[in-house]
Amino acid sequence: MNYPGGAKKNNSNNSSDSIISKLSHKNRGMTLENELNLSNEYYREIDKAFIYKKPTPIKITKVDYPSRDKAVIKEAIFTIPSTTDYNGLYKGKYIDFEAKETKSKTSFSLNNIHLHQINHLRNIYNHSGIAFIIVRFTTLNETYLLMVKDFLDYIDNNDRKSIPIEFFKDKAYIIKDGYMPRIDYLKVIDEIIGG
Amino acid sequence: MNYPGGAKKNNSNNSSDSIISKLSHKNRGMTLENELNLSNEYYREIDKAFIYKKPTPIKITKVDYPSRDKAVIKEAIFTIPSTTDYNGLYKGKYIDFEAKETKSKTSFSLNNIHLHQINHLRNIYNHSGIAFIIVRFTTLNETYLLMVKDFLDYIDNNDRKSIPIEFFKDKAYIIKDGYMPRIDYLKVIDEIIGG
Repeated sequence: MNYPGGAKKNNSNNSSDSIISKLSHKNRGMTLENELNLSNEYYREIDKAFIYKKPTPIKITKVDYPSRDKAVIKEAIFTIPSTTDYNGLYKGKYIDFEAKETKSKTSFSLNNIHLHQINHLRNIYNHSGIAFIIVRFTTLNETYLLMVKDFLDYIDNNDRKSIPIEFFKDKAYIIKDGYMPRIDYLKVIDEIIGG
Repeated sequence: MNYPGGAKKNNSNNSSDSIISKLSHKNRGMTLENELNLSNEYYREIDKAFIYKKPTPIKITKVDYPSRDKAVIKEAIFTIPSTTDYNGLYKGKYIDFEAKETKSKTSFSLNNIHLHQINHLRNIYNHSGIAFIIVRFTTLNETYLLMVKDFLDYIDNNDRKSIPIEFFKDKAYIIKDGYMPRIDYLKVIDEIIGG
């Protein structure tokens, strides 16, 4: 799900399918979000991990109640999320991460992640949760998992507003494309934490 | 936040404040949800735990993009949540729970909790997460924390569609009203898991 800042379209459209499609698919082909959702579904099906994407936070400003069981939101706006998009449970451990795509071939702009999301990741790290970011460089077709410790090390020691891809190559872990699951990020976590 | 099945109002209203108020406040006074949100905020402020209520899941069917930064949802419906409302991290452990109010003085109807929420709680329990339900009997002004093991024991061994209050009195833990935080449910968790 794209947030307002990332919205590219500049039109109004009442066709539900195309709208949902525009909201959900930033690029052609399957988005990182869709692949992660399918991967998480697969993890649940094989009873491996219970990790979900949180619903997109909105503020409802108008609702219709045509009948007791049918509430229809007639107006709402997207709000800035307080936390990361994904969290859950794996091997008794708390998992928390944010996932982002970038078209850049050279760096990942920190504008992609809200300050309170960074603070949230720092809190999770400080309290022994397993926290990371997944970044896909779509043009390069490379997907990285960067543990939050390294992510924070960069932020705390650099004034740049972006992380160069060299840092990912050096500190992050490549997640190879797969079939089932498409993005086997827990395999990387196993390697890191010694599963 | 009430879901469609719990919606009591049968009208249409464009005043945002009153609508939000009707959506959020099932009863007069502060709802269990609001008290839990304040308690979780307090836990975060004192760096004790990072537990959040998930946003209400909706399906967007119509969106306007008047400009690049302003997306306005023009139509959406509430959808059934896949998981519980609350999860997060406490002392390195994964916490997951559902919270419900009932006006009944004698029992808690299982209609209040969706089957896939029960399945979700079972998965969390099986994978060593800390899972429970918080139930407030509003008429009695009694709030209970029932660990998921006992909750599942009841469901798996009874055909009744409700849990009698005697079961809560026997197996659950009373959460006393407090000031900061209002609902100190982590104190109960500490007692149970030996914090």
